[in-house]
Amino acid sequence: MQRPLPRTRSLLIVLSGPSGVGKDAVLARMKGSGRPLHFAVTATTRPQRKGESDGVDYHFVTRERFEEMVKGRDLLEWAEVYGNFYGVPRRQVKEALEQGHDVLVKVDVQGAATIKRAVSQALLIFLAPPSMAVLEERIRQRNTESVIELERRIATAHEEMKQLGTFDYVVVNARVARAVAEIDAIITAEKCRVSPRVVAL
Amino acid sequence: MQRPLPRTRSLLIVLSGPSGVGKDAVLARMKGSGRPLHFAVTATTRPQRKGESDGVDYHFVTRERFEEMVKGRDLLEWAEVYGNFYGVPRRQVKEALEQGHDVLVKVDVQGAATIKRAVSQALLIFLAPPSMAVLEERIRQRNTESVIELERRIATAHEEMKQLGTFDYVVVNARVARAVAEIDAIITAEKCRVSPRVVAL
Repeated sequence: MQRPLPRTRSLLIVLSGPSGVGKDAVLARMKGSGRPLHFAVTATTRPQRKGESDGVDYHFVTRERFEEMVKGRDLLEWAEVYGNFYGVPRRQVKEALEQGHDVLVKVDVQGAATIKRAVSQALLIFLAPPSMAVLEERIRQRNTESVIELERRIATAHEEMKQLGTFDYVVVNARVARAVAEIDAIITAEKCRVSPRVVAL
Repeated sequence: MQRPLPRTRSLLIVLSGPSGVGKDAVLARMKGSGRPLHFAVTATTRPQRKGESDGVDYHFVTRERFEEMVKGRDLLEWAEVYGNFYGVPRRQVKEALEQGHDVLVKVDVQGAATIKRAVSQALLIFLAPPSMAVLEERIRQRNTESVIELERRIATAHEEMKQLGTFDYVVVNARVARAVAEIDAIITAEKCRVSPRVVAL
Protein backbone atom coordinates (compact mmCIF):
# COMPACT_ATOMS: atom_id res chain seq x y z
CA MET A 1 0.00 0.00 0.00
CA GLN A 2 1.05 3.52 -0.70
CA ARG A 3 0.79 5.94 2.18
CA PRO A 4 -2.90 6.76 2.19
CA LEU A 5 -2.29 10.46 1.57
CA PRO A 6 0.25 12.74 -0.03
CA ARG A 7 0.86 14.20 3.42
CA THR A 8 3.90 16.18 2.41
CA ARG A 9 1.99 18.62 0.23
CA SER A 10 3.07 22.05 1.26
CA LEU A 11 0.74 24.54 2.91
CA LEU A 12 0.61 28.27 2.31
CA ILE A 13 -0.32 29.55 5.75
CA VAL A 14 -1.43 33.17 6.03
CA LEU A 15 -1.32 34.63 9.53
CA SER A 16 -3.21 37.88 9.87
CA GLY A 17 -5.32 39.89 12.27
CA PRO A 18 -5.93 43.48 13.25
CA SER A 19 -3.14 45.93 13.89
CA GLY A 20 -1.98 45.56 17.49
CA VAL A 21 -3.18 42.00 18.04
CA GLY A 22 0.35 40.69 18.49
CA LYS A 23 1.18 38.96 15.20
CA ASP A 24 4.90 39.63 15.60
CA ALA A 25 5.05 38.20 19.12
CA VAL A 26 3.26 35.05 17.96
CA LEU A 27 5.56 34.76 14.97
CA ALA A 28 8.66 35.15 17.12
CA ARG A 29 7.46 32.35 19.40
CA MET A 30 6.68 30.15 16.41
CA LYS A 31 10.19 30.61 15.05
CA GLY A 32 11.53 29.14 18.27
CA SER A 33 9.05 26.27 18.44
CA GLY A 34 10.93 23.84 16.25
CA ARG A 35 8.28 23.15 13.62
CA PRO A 36 9.99 23.40 10.23
CA LEU A 37 8.31 26.32 8.51
CA HIS A 38 9.56 28.76 5.94
CA PHE A 39 8.72 32.23 7.22
CA ALA A 40 8.24 34.49 4.23
CA VAL A 41 10.13 37.76 4.55
CA THR A 42 8.02 40.75 3.53
CA ALA A 43 9.46 43.60 1.50
CA THR A 44 8.61 47.02 2.91
CA THR A 45 9.32 50.70 2.37
CA ARG A 46 8.83 51.54 6.03
CA PRO A 47 11.91 52.61 8.00
CA GLN A 48 13.91 49.92 9.76
CA ARG A 49 13.22 49.93 13.52
CA LYS A 50 15.73 49.36 16.26
CA GLY A 51 16.40 45.65 16.69
CA GLU A 52 15.17 44.70 13.22
CA SER A 53 17.47 42.98 10.72
CA ASP A 54 17.23 43.50 6.97
CA GLY A 55 16.46 40.21 5.23
CA VAL A 56 15.29 38.63 8.47
CA ASP A 57 12.44 40.75 9.83
CA TYR A 58 11.79 42.49 6.51
CA HIS A 59 13.47 43.23 3.25
CA PHE A 60 13.82 46.99 3.61
CA VAL A 61 13.60 48.54 0.16
CA THR A 62 13.25 52.00 -1.34
CA ARG A 63 9.98 53.19 -2.73
CA GLU A 64 11.50 53.04 -6.22
CA ARG A 65 12.55 49.41 -5.80
CA PHE A 66 9.11 48.56 -4.44
CA GLU A 67 7.44 50.12 -7.46
CA GLU A 68 9.66 48.04 -9.74
CA MET A 69 8.55 44.90 -7.90
CA VAL A 70 4.90 45.86 -8.32
CA LYS A 71 5.37 46.54 -12.04
CA GLY A 72 7.26 43.26 -12.48
CA ARG A 73 4.45 41.32 -10.76
CA ASP A 74 7.06 40.07 -8.32
CA LEU A 75 4.72 40.41 -5.33
CA LEU A 76 2.12 37.85 -4.28
CA GLU A 77 0.24 40.71 -2.66
CA TRP A 78 1.08 44.23 -1.68
CA ALA A 79 -0.66 46.97 0.20
CA GLU A 80 -0.20 50.44 1.55
CA VAL A 81 -0.62 50.58 5.32
CA TYR A 82 -0.30 53.89 7.15
CA GLY A 83 1.61 55.38 4.21
CA ASN A 84 4.13 52.56 3.90
CA PHE A 85 4.18 49.76 1.36
CA TYR A 86 4.39 46.07 2.22
CA GLY A 87 4.56 43.17 -0.20
CA VAL A 88 5.25 39.44 -0.22
CA PRO A 89 7.83 38.38 -2.84
CA ARG A 90 6.19 35.72 -4.97
CA ARG A 91 9.31 33.84 -6.07
CA GLN A 92 10.51 33.30 -2.51
CA VAL A 93 7.17 31.72 -1.52
CA LYS A 94 6.88 29.68 -4.70
CA GLU A 95 10.37 28.23 -4.38
CA ALA A 96 9.91 27.29 -0.74
CA LEU A 97 6.61 25.54 -1.50
CA GLU A 98 8.18 23.69 -4.45
CA GLN A 99 10.97 22.52 -2.17
CA GLY A 100 8.32 20.94 0.05
CA HIS A 101 8.31 23.50 2.84
CA ASP A 102 5.19 24.83 4.48
CA VAL A 103 5.31 28.60 4.13
CA LEU A 104 3.97 31.09 6.63
CA VAL A 105 3.16 34.59 5.46
CA LYS A 106 2.34 37.33 7.93
CA VAL A 107 0.19 40.04 6.37
CA ASP A 108 -2.40 42.61 7.36
CA VAL A 109 -6.06 41.70 6.93
CA GLN A 110 -6.27 43.44 3.56
CA GLY A 111 -3.29 41.42 2.30
CA ALA A 112 -4.78 38.15 3.51
CA ALA A 113 -7.91 38.79 1.45
CA THR A 114 -5.76 39.51 -1.62
CA ILE A 115 -3.82 36.25 -1.19
CA LYS A 116 -7.04 34.27 -0.72
CA ARG A 117 -8.39 35.69 -3.99
CA ALA A 118 -5.18 34.73 -5.80
CA VAL A 119 -4.62 31.38 -4.05
CA SER A 120 -7.97 29.92 -3.01
CA GLN A 121 -6.32 26.99 -1.20
CA ALA A 122 -4.25 29.22 1.08
CA LEU A 123 -4.89 28.50 4.75
CA LEU A 124 -6.03 31.70 6.48
CA ILE A 125 -5.63 32.11 10.22
CA PHE A 126 -7.08 35.19 11.93
CA LEU A 127 -5.37 36.18 15.14
CA ALA A 128 -8.06 37.83 17.28
CA PRO A 129 -7.78 39.79 20.53
CA PRO A 130 -9.57 38.47 23.63
CA SER A 131 -11.73 41.62 23.42
CA MET A 132 -11.82 44.96 21.62
CA ALA A 133 -10.96 46.67 24.92
CA VAL A 134 -7.75 44.66 25.13
CA LEU A 135 -6.92 45.43 21.50
CA GLU A 136 -7.45 49.16 21.97
CA GLU A 137 -5.27 49.11 25.05
CA ARG A 138 -2.50 47.33 23.14
CA ILE A 139 -2.68 49.88 20.33
CA ARG A 140 -2.55 52.75 22.85
CA GLN A 141 0.47 51.28 24.61
CA ARG A 142 2.32 50.70 21.37
CA ASN A 143 1.47 53.97 19.72
CA THR A 144 4.07 56.70 19.89
CA GLU A 145 2.31 58.97 17.47
CA SER A 146 -0.41 61.60 17.55
CA VAL A 147 -3.90 61.21 18.96
CA ILE A 148 -5.29 61.43 15.45
CA GLU A 149 -3.01 58.61 14.31
CA LEU A 150 -4.01 56.60 17.36
CA GLU A 151 -7.73 56.98 16.68
CA ARG A 152 -7.15 56.09 13.04
CA ARG A 153 -5.42 52.86 14.06
CA ILE A 154 -8.23 51.95 16.43
CA ALA A 155 -10.86 52.62 13.77
CA THR A 156 -8.89 50.48 11.30
CA ALA A 157 -8.65 47.66 13.84
CA HIS A 158 -12.44 47.70 14.22
CA GLU A 159 -12.83 47.47 10.45
CA GLU A 160 -10.29 44.66 10.28
CA MET A 161 -12.21 42.63 12.86
CA LYS A 162 -15.15 42.56 10.45
CA GLN A 163 -13.12 40.54 7.95
CA LEU A 164 -13.04 37.49 10.21
CA GLY A 165 -15.63 35.70 8.07
CA THR A 166 -13.27 35.37 5.11
CA PHE A 167 -10.78 33.35 7.18
CA ASP A 168 -10.59 29.60 7.76
CA TYR A 169 -9.58 29.65 11.42
CA VAL A 170 -9.58 32.11 14.30
CA VAL A 171 -7.08 31.94 17.14
CA VAL A 172 -7.58 34.16 20.17
CA ASN A 173 -4.30 35.73 21.29
CA ALA A 174 -4.85 35.91 25.04
CA ARG A 175 -1.63 34.06 25.89
CA VAL A 176 1.02 33.83 23.17
CA ALA A 177 2.01 30.27 24.11
CA ARG A 178 -1.57 29.07 23.76
CA ALA A 179 -2.08 30.90 20.47
CA VAL A 180 1.09 29.28 19.09
CA ALA A 181 -0.09 25.85 20.28
CA GLU A 182 -3.41 26.35 18.51
CA ILE A 183 -1.73 27.45 15.27
CA ASP A 184 0.50 24.40 15.52
CA ALA A 185 -2.55 22.17 15.99
CA ILE A 186 -4.22 23.75 12.94
CA ILE A 187 -1.18 22.97 10.79
CA THR A 188 -0.99 19.39 12.11
CA ALA A 189 -4.71 18.88 11.47
CA GLU A 190 -4.51 20.31 7.95
CA LYS A 191 -1.80 17.77 7.17
CA CYS A 192 -4.21 15.02 8.22
CA ARG A 193 -6.97 16.17 5.87
CA VAL A 194 -8.17 13.48 3.49
CA SER A 195 -8.69 16.17 0.83
CA PRO A 196 -5.52 18.21 1.12
CA ARG A 197 -5.23 21.81 -0.03
CA VAL A 198 -3.39 21.99 -3.34
CA VAL A 199 -1.64 25.33 -3.59
CA ALA A 200 -0.82 26.68 -7.05
CA LEU A 201 1.14 29.91 -7.35
CA MET B 1 -17.07 42.68 21.54
CA GLN B 2 -18.49 39.23 21.84
CA ARG B 3 -16.06 36.37 21.58
CA PRO B 4 -15.60 36.10 17.82
CA LEU B 5 -16.86 32.54 17.70
CA PRO B 6 -19.20 30.20 19.55
CA ARG B 7 -16.15 28.08 20.32
CA THR B 8 -17.93 25.86 22.79
CA ARG B 9 -20.13 24.18 20.20
CA SER B 10 -19.84 20.49 20.74
CA LEU B 11 -18.26 18.16 18.23
CA LEU B 12 -19.42 14.68 17.31
CA ILE B 13 -16.12 12.93 16.62
CA VAL B 14 -16.25 9.57 14.89
CA LEU B 15 -13.09 7.47 15.18
CA SER B 16 -12.99 4.58 12.77
CA GLY B 17 -10.63 2.51 10.65
CA PRO B 18 -10.15 -1.05 9.53
CA SER B 19 -10.36 -4.00 11.87
CA GLY B 20 -6.99 -4.49 13.54
CA VAL B 21 -5.68 -0.96 13.10
CA GLY B 22 -5.62 -0.33 16.85
CA LYS B 23 -8.69 1.82 17.54
CA ASP B 24 -9.00 0.50 21.10
CA ALA B 25 -5.36 1.20 21.97
CA VAL B 26 -5.70 4.77 20.66
CA LEU B 27 -8.94 5.23 22.57
CA ALA B 28 -7.41 3.93 25.80
CA ARG B 29 -4.55 6.43 25.45
CA MET B 30 -6.99 9.26 24.70
CA LYS B 31 -8.94 8.48 27.87
CA GLY B 32 -5.80 9.09 29.87
CA SER B 33 -4.77 12.23 28.01
CA GLY B 34 -6.82 14.70 30.02
CA ARG B 35 -8.84 16.29 27.22
CA PRO B 36 -12.47 16.41 28.39
CA LEU B 37 -14.32 14.16 25.98
CA HIS B 38 -17.43 12.07 26.40
CA PHE B 39 -16.59 8.59 25.11
CA ALA B 40 -19.78 7.05 23.82
CA VAL B 41 -20.31 3.50 25.07
CA THR B 42 -21.42 1.14 22.32
CA ALA B 43 -24.09 -1.49 22.91
CA THR B 44 -23.14 -4.93 21.64
CA THR B 45 -24.36 -8.50 21.57
CA ARG B 46 -20.85 -9.93 21.40
CA PRO B 47 -19.59 -11.82 24.44
CA GLN B 48 -17.78 -9.88 27.12
CA ARG B 49 -14.00 -10.48 26.94
CA LYS B 50 -11.66 -10.86 29.85
CA GLY B 51 -10.78 -7.45 31.27
CA GLU B 52 -13.78 -5.66 29.79
CA SER B 53 -16.32 -3.92 32.04
CA ASP B 54 -20.01 -3.68 31.23
CA GLY B 55 -21.06 -0.03 30.85
CA VAL B 56 -17.45 1.08 30.44
CA ASP B 57 -16.01 -0.76 27.45
CA TYR B 58 -19.41 -1.72 26.05
CA HIS B 59 -22.99 -2.12 27.12
CA PHE B 60 -23.27 -5.88 26.80
CA VAL B 61 -26.86 -6.71 25.85
CA THR B 62 -28.79 -9.72 24.67
CA ARG B 63 -29.82 -10.07 21.07
CA GLU B 64 -33.45 -9.54 22.14
CA ARG B 65 -32.61 -6.27 23.90
CA PHE B 66 -30.60 -5.13 20.88
CA GLU B 67 -33.53 -5.81 18.57
CA GLU B 68 -35.78 -3.72 20.84
CA MET B 69 -33.31 -0.83 20.58
CA VAL B 70 -33.28 -1.10 16.80
CA LYS B 71 -37.09 -1.15 16.65
CA GLY B 72 -37.30 1.80 19.04
CA ARG B 73 -34.87 3.82 16.90
CA ASP B 74 -32.70 4.15 19.99
CA LEU B 75 -29.48 3.65 18.03
CA LEU B 76 -27.61 6.35 16.11
CA GLU B 77 -26.18 3.58 13.96
CA TRP B 78 -25.94 -0.14 14.24
CA ALA B 79 -24.26 -2.87 12.27
CA GLU B 80 -23.56 -6.56 12.25
CA VAL B 81 -19.86 -7.33 12.31
CA TYR B 82 -18.67 -10.93 12.21
CA GLY B 83 -22.07 -12.12 13.41
CA ASN B 84 -22.32 -9.75 16.37
CA PHE B 85 -24.36 -6.57 16.60
CA TYR B 86 -22.97 -3.19 17.61
CA GLY B 87 -24.88 0.06 18.02
CA VAL B 88 -24.43 3.56 19.39
CA PRO B 89 -27.23 4.65 21.77
CA ARG B 90 -28.61 7.90 20.39
CA ARG B 91 -29.86 9.42 23.64
CA GLN B 92 -26.50 9.08 25.39
CA VAL B 93 -24.76 10.97 22.56
CA LYS B 94 -27.49 13.59 22.24
CA GLU B 95 -27.50 14.36 25.96
CA ALA B 96 -23.72 14.68 26.16
CA LEU B 97 -23.66 17.06 23.17
CA GLU B 98 -26.47 19.14 24.66
CA GLN B 99 -24.52 19.40 27.91
CA GLY B 100 -21.68 20.95 25.91
CA HIS B 101 -19.38 17.94 25.78
CA ASP B 102 -17.50 16.85 22.71
CA VAL B 103 -18.46 13.26 22.06
CA LEU B 104 -16.21 10.59 20.61
CA VAL B 105 -17.77 7.55 19.03
CA LYS B 106 -15.68 4.56 18.02
CA VAL B 107 -17.27 2.57 15.23
CA ASP B 108 -16.32 0.33 12.36
CA VAL B 109 -16.00 1.88 8.90
CA GLN B 110 -19.53 0.84 7.94
CA GLY B 111 -20.91 2.56 11.05
CA ALA B 112 -18.97 5.75 10.36
CA ALA B 113 -20.57 6.01 6.94
CA THR B 114 -24.01 5.54 8.50
CA ILE B 115 -23.38 8.30 11.05
CA LYS B 116 -22.09 10.66 8.34
CA ARG B 117 -25.29 10.12 6.33
CA ALA B 118 -27.42 10.85 9.42
CA VAL B 119 -25.27 13.69 10.81
CA SER B 120 -23.49 15.46 7.96
CA GLN B 121 -21.52 17.68 10.36
CA ALA B 122 -20.00 14.76 12.25
CA LEU B 123 -16.20 14.88 12.23
CA LEU B 124 -14.85 11.64 10.76
CA ILE B 125 -11.33 10.49 11.56
CA PHE B 126 -9.91 7.43 9.79
CA LEU B 127 -7.23 5.57 11.67
CA ALA B 128 -4.98 4.02 9.04
CA PRO B 129 -2.16 1.48 9.36
CA PRO B 130 1.35 2.45 8.27
CA SER B 131 0.98 -0.19 5.55
CA MET B 132 -1.29 -3.09 4.62
CA ALA B 133 1.51 -5.50 5.54
CA VAL B 134 1.51 -4.11 9.09
CA LEU B 135 -2.27 -4.32 9.27
CA GLU B 136 -2.32 -7.94 8.10
CA GLU B 137 0.34 -8.82 10.66
CA ARG B 138 -1.69 -7.19 13.44
CA ILE B 139 -4.80 -9.10 12.40
CA ARG B 140 -2.84 -12.38 12.31
CA GLN B 141 -1.38 -11.77 15.78
CA ARG B 142 -4.76 -10.95 17.24
CA ASN B 143 -6.72 -13.67 15.57
CA THR B 144 -7.37 -16.80 17.57
CA GLU B 145 -9.81 -18.25 15.11
CA SER B 146 -9.70 -20.36 11.97
CA VAL B 147 -7.70 -19.66 8.84
CA ILE B 148 -10.94 -18.97 6.99
CA GLU B 149 -11.99 -16.42 9.61
CA LEU B 150 -8.53 -14.85 9.42
CA GLU B 151 -8.66 -14.48 5.65
CA ARG B 152 -12.16 -13.03 5.93
CA ARG B 153 -10.93 -10.38 8.34
CA ILE B 154 -8.01 -9.48 6.10
CA ALA B 155 -10.28 -9.20 3.05
CA THR B 156 -12.68 -7.00 5.05
CA ALA B 157 -9.80 -4.76 6.16
CA HIS B 158 -8.82 -4.25 2.50
CA GLU B 159 -12.40 -3.28 1.70
CA GLU B 160 -12.52 -0.93 4.69
CA MET B 161 -9.38 0.87 3.53
CA LYS B 162 -11.23 1.86 0.35
CA GLN B 163 -13.68 3.96 2.39
CA LEU B 164 -11.00 6.49 3.32
CA GLY B 165 -12.40 9.03 0.87
CA THR B 166 -15.61 9.52 2.85
CA PHE B 167 -13.65 10.68 5.93
CA ASP B 168 -12.51 14.19 6.89
CA TYR B 169 -9.12 13.29 8.32
CA VAL B 170 -6.73 10.37 8.24
CA VAL B 171 -4.33 9.59 11.08
CA VAL B 172 -1.67 6.95 10.56
CA ASN B 173 -1.34 4.71 13.60
CA ALA B 174 2.36 3.92 13.51
CA ARG B 175 2.96 5.03 17.10
CA VAL B 176 -0.06 5.33 19.38
CA ALA B 177 1.26 8.45 21.14
CA ARG B 178 1.69 10.26 17.84
CA ALA B 179 -1.72 9.18 16.58
CA VAL B 180 -3.33 10.49 19.77
CA ALA B 181 -1.43 13.79 19.43
CA GLU B 182 -2.70 14.18 15.87
CA ILE B 183 -6.29 13.44 16.88
CA ASP B 184 -5.92 15.99 19.66
CA ALA B 185 -4.62 18.55 17.15
CA ILE B 186 -7.56 17.86 14.85
CA ILE B 187 -10.03 18.52 17.67
CA THR B 188 -8.19 21.72 18.69
CA ALA B 189 -8.13 22.92 15.09
CA GLU B 190 -11.82 22.16 14.56
CA LYS B 191 -12.61 24.33 17.58
CA CYS B 192 -10.76 27.20 15.87
CA ARG B 193 -12.80 26.96 12.66
CA VAL B 194 -14.49 30.21 11.69
CA SER B 195 -17.44 28.19 10.34
CA PRO B 196 -17.98 25.63 13.07
CA ARG B 197 -19.73 22.33 12.54
CA VAL B 198 -23.28 22.45 13.86
CA VAL B 199 -24.34 18.98 14.91
CA ALA B 200 -28.05 18.16 14.99
CA LEU B 201 -29.18 14.77 16.25
